[in-house]
This record gives sequence, structure tokens and C-alpha cells, in this order.
Amino acid sequence: MKNEIKPFVIGLDLGGTNSVFGIVDSRGEIKATTAIKTQSYTTAQDYVDASVEALQVIIEQVGGIDKIKAMGIGAPNGNYYNGTIEFAPNLSWGCDGVVPLAKMFEQRLGIPVALTNDANAAAIGEMTYGVARGMKNFIVITLGTGVGSGIVVNGQLVYGSDGFAGELGHTVVRHRGNRHCGCGREDCLECYCSATGVARTAKELLTTTTEPSLLREMNVDDITSLDVSIAAGKGDALAKRIYEFTGEILGEACAHFTAFSAPEAYIFFGGLTKAGDLLMEPLKRAYDKHVLKIYKGKAQFLVSGLDGASAAVLGASAIGWEI
Amino acid sequence: MKNEIKPFVIGLDLGGTNSVFGIVDSRGEIKATTAIKTQSYTTAQDYVDASVEALQVIIEQVGGIDKIKAMGIGAPNGNYYNGTIEFAPNLSWGCDGVVPLAKMFEQRLGIPVALTNDANAAAIGEMTYGVARGMKNFIVITLGTGVGSGIVVNGQLVYGSDGFAGELGHTVVRHRGNRHCGCGREDCLECYCSATGVARTAKELLTTTTEPSLLREMNVDDITSLDVSIAAGKGDALAKRIYEFTGEILGEACAHFTAFSAPEAYIFFGGLTKAGDLLMEPLKRAYDKHVLKIYKGKAQFLVSGLDGASAAVLGASAIGWEI
Repeated sequence: MKNEIKPFVIGLDLGGTNSVFGIVDSRGEIKATTAIKTQSYTTAQDYVDASVEALQVIIEQVGGIDKIKAMGIGAPNGNYYNGTIEFAPNLSWGCDGVVPLAKMFEQRLGIPVALTNDANAAAIGEMTYGVARGMKNFIVITLGTGVGSGIVVNGQLVYGSDGFAGELGHTVVRHRGNRHCGCGREDCLECYCSATGVARTAKELLTTTTEPSLLREMNVDDITSLDVSIAAGKGDALAKRIYEFTGEILGEACAHFTAFSAPEAYIFFGGLTKAGDLLMEPLKRAYDKHVLKIYKGKAQFLVSGLDGASAAVLGASAIGWEI
Repeated sequence: MKNEIKPFVIGLDLGGTNSVFGIVDSRGEIKATTAIKTQSYTTAQDYVDASVEALQVIIEQVGGIDKIKAMGIGAPNGNYYNGTIEFAPNLSWGCDGVVPLAKMFEQRLGIPVALTNDANAAAIGEMTYGVARGMKNFIVITLGTGVGSGIVVNGQLVYGSDGFAGELGHTVVRHRGNRHCGCGREDCLECYCSATGVARTAKELLTTTTEPSLLREMNVDDITSLDVSIAAGKGDALAKRIYEFTGEILGEACAHFTAFSAPEAYIFFGGLTKAGDLLMEPLKRAYDKHVLKIYKGKAQFLVSGLDGASAAVLGASAIGWEI
């Protein structure tokens, strides 16, 4: 059967809590969707069985498997070259070994399956359906619980020699020596510019100063990045400074990334982007201050053009078109 | 005339002092060579005229222009996309504007001409004739008066959206706030890991400590990286520490670069590599210490495989094969 009469791809956004499946057309319209709980299974085989069972329903809804070209998976610690999930710390059935997930789905569904990490999926999603359409050199930075990145150079995703390139959340911009990162190192970008990083900055500022703030009404350990946004939106000076600090570190980091691949745009994706100009204004100011002269004024700073709720599924599905 | 009967390319290593031309075959053998002084000309036109005059002689030696496929130029501030040299601070005839050098040579020689900066030329040279043959993902770092870089991803040089990607010498690893860089910023890698950076470290250590050292016999402002190597070779502890410090910063920087493109190798090129293990051992130790766990033990650390004296010409010539 020819490719042109296979109008759909399957996307799987494999998260620590939910696994969301979507069947997507070439314009990025989601035709059918379903989900299972990621962690309700003890083995990868059980997980794939449950996934395929859920998928059968929506595959029938769009006319059967013959209508589907391929499947793309965005998953933590996903290795594109091998189609594997490798030692993913947050997956009960994937934390202590190498799971050949792409192959397992391929065998069950009879279509090609490719897999990469969620940030790379986001980058391909932006290039296929989002604000990076037509761009050949850009960097997507995902600002969620952690900080991820997907780098596109010459229109191709950068996977590197081992399939794990693009971990910009684990570069260090400010060596303060006081924030331990989940990766075992100190002061990674992720310790500052993720949702949890913003909460850590809030705690740091609240416990080392006596400055009045709406945030003092809360238990310091319960404060989230959303609480900080809300307080900042009410004009709280300390809350605004937390986002300024976050944006400054991220902007300075981007200035260094530009020395690598001189992208035409940075595209930010994920929960923290909801802070809007609170984050983006200090980010752009810090970038302009720190970037090398020859690059000044060239890069755009954009927020993901994909619909928030389905962005990750769209990103994953986009990998399906690349196969 | 078909390509296969054009066995040679011209390489031009355009430096601040000398412009060296070579005619090179596909195995990297230099068949003929000539040179002119770069700065003896007041206009780019005069420079090109003198170059072509010198080139005519060696072109005839290899059988005429019909034997030559193309010309590649490695030049400071070279822009591959436009074939231009842009505001090159060290060139009398190229410092205050945009010189369309590739086009000027093309019109005079009647063959295709491509141009890029010297570090990118080195990377293409390593891929074509040197230790990176067969590699798809690697980074060349040039350690000379400055620090340059040429990055290869998926077998292609990374030029970025503007032709100026790959300025890793102008990323910052240690914010000490005390070394001003020629680029106008503080503490760039180049301030520490170039030949001049090593001399600056020598001066810093000699003026802030009273530790005995062979280097104290010299005027502190006259000490070069070569003097430091020689002293270290004689067992001088302070001189060794200067290279340790240099290697540590470079190794830590490479650990961050790996988070970007996960190269299979770093290839070091230029004068400072003559320090050998004095530099490479602390470099590798610092890399292992700072690199993210998933990348540990994967990258090779190599020294350029191109003959020192002709390496830059070979690199430039290699661009000719890419056209």
C-alpha cells in the first residue's frame, strides 16, 4: 500500500504518570485520542499489551491500521538510534535496564515505530506543526518539572554519536555550589529554570531575606512556580524577582548555546512558559547582555505554537512522519 | 569537463601575517605551494591580484586550471553562506566592512570558491584527510593565539542560521570576573585556554604567589606558553600547575559541549597541543569529573592528525572538495 493513502501517524506521549496516545493527520489535527496510566504495570510487556489494547479502539475509529503510516514515541531517556528507553529513573518498568520499546510496538502493530526523548519530540513537533515550520536551525527548551532541549541543525535533530545529545538542562551557567541536581552534579540549569527550580529560588529568597511578600502566607515548602506567578501577577516584588532571576540565568545560558549552533530561534515549551513576560523579558535582556556581538539581535524568542494539552502528543506523532 | 579528471583543489590559509596557498590532491598530498604577505595590500582587490599572480605559477606546475576542481579558503571571520570576510579585526583590508572574497577569487580563477573560518576549515580538514575520517559527530578545538572551534553534526559542519556558529572559545566556564576578552566580555574560554591565556595564567600565579619557579628568571610580561611548557618539562611545579589549570577549564568546557552534540571525539589542533599530556591529562580528568553520567567514557580526546606546518592549508583545501 502506498504511503500517500496512509494519512495518519500515532503519537505516544509517555510521561511518568500518564501515557497519552493520539492519532494525528499531516496538518497536526488529532483525530482520536486515548490514555493509560504509565505506572500500573510491572513489566514493559504488560505496558505494551495495555497500550495496544487501548490503541485498537482508536485505530478502528480512523479506519484501521492500514491508514496509519507509523508511530512516534516521546519518552524519558529515549534513545532514537536504538528505539530504547534506557535506565529511566521515573518508570517502574524501565528504571533498571534497556527497554526496546520501539521494537515491541513494531512487532505488535506491524508499522514502523521511532522513539526519542520528550524534548526532541517537542522540537520535531514544532518543526512539523508549530512555530518552527520552515526553520532549519533552532532550539526548543522545555521548562517543566525539569529542563529539556531539542536542537535542530541544518533541518535535522541533533542526536549525537550516542543518541543522547541535547541535554542543555544539565549545563552549568552559574556555579553557586548550593543546588544539588538530580543528575548528581551541582547547579545545572535545571536547578534554576524548571518549575522546581523556581520553587527552590522562592525558598532561598524567603529564608535568606525578611522582605515582605504574599508568598510568606504559605508554607515555604509548599510554594510552586504557579504560586510565584500568581503573586507576581498581583505585583509582589519578591515574586517578580524570582522570575527575573530565573529568566536571567536562562538568557545567559541561551547566549552560550548560540555560540554553538547560532539558531534563528529559541522556542520555549512547557508549564513555566505560562509566566509569560515575567520570564521572557529578563531572559531576553540577559541574552542581549551576554551574547557575543556577531550574534546580537539575530535570534527570535518564541513560545511553543502547539496547543498545550496536546503538544506532547503532537510532538511524538511528528517523529512518525520522519521515519 | 567532468569532475573526475580534476584531481586537485586549492587551499588558502589566510592568516593575519601570511597567506599560504597549496594545491592538494584527494589524499591530502600537497603538490605545490606558495605564499604572500597578507597585510602588504591596502585593498582587497590588490590582495586578490597578488594572490592570483602567485597562484598562476603553481597552477601551471600541476597542469593548469583545468586540473583544479575548486578553491577553499580558511579565513578569520569567514562566513560560509556568503563567501565573505566580515569585519575581521586583524586584516588591514578587511577590518571595516564585508569583503566578498570567495566571489572575487571565483571571477578571477573561473572555478568555484568557498570560504569559512579557520577552525571550521580545520574540522573539514580532519574529516577529509585527518583523524576524523569516517566520523559523523566530532568537535575540533583550535588552541592558538585564540580558541576556535569547528563542530560537525551528522557529518555536516554546523554553520548555524547566520554562518557564524561554532564560537566555543567565547563561552564562559568559570566566572572569575578578572580576565577581559578581546570580544568585549569577561572570562571566555579563550582567556584561559589559548597560548595567550596560558601566559596570563603564568602572570597571575607568579604575581599572586611567592612559590619558587624557573619562570621567575624571566620578565613576567615576556613569558609565553612555550616557556611554560619548557619549565614544566624540567619539572617546575608552578609551570605544571599552569597547564593543569588550563586543562581543567578546557575539560570542564568540553563536558558542557557534550551535553549539546554528544560528539564521539574532541580533536585539538594548534600550538598549545605541543604541551601534550601536560594539558591532555588534566583535561581528560576534568571532563570525566564534570560530564553527565550518560556520556561518561564515550568521547575520545585526540590531537590533530594533520601535519602541523600544512594543517591549515589542508583544512582550507578540504572545503574545496565539499563544493
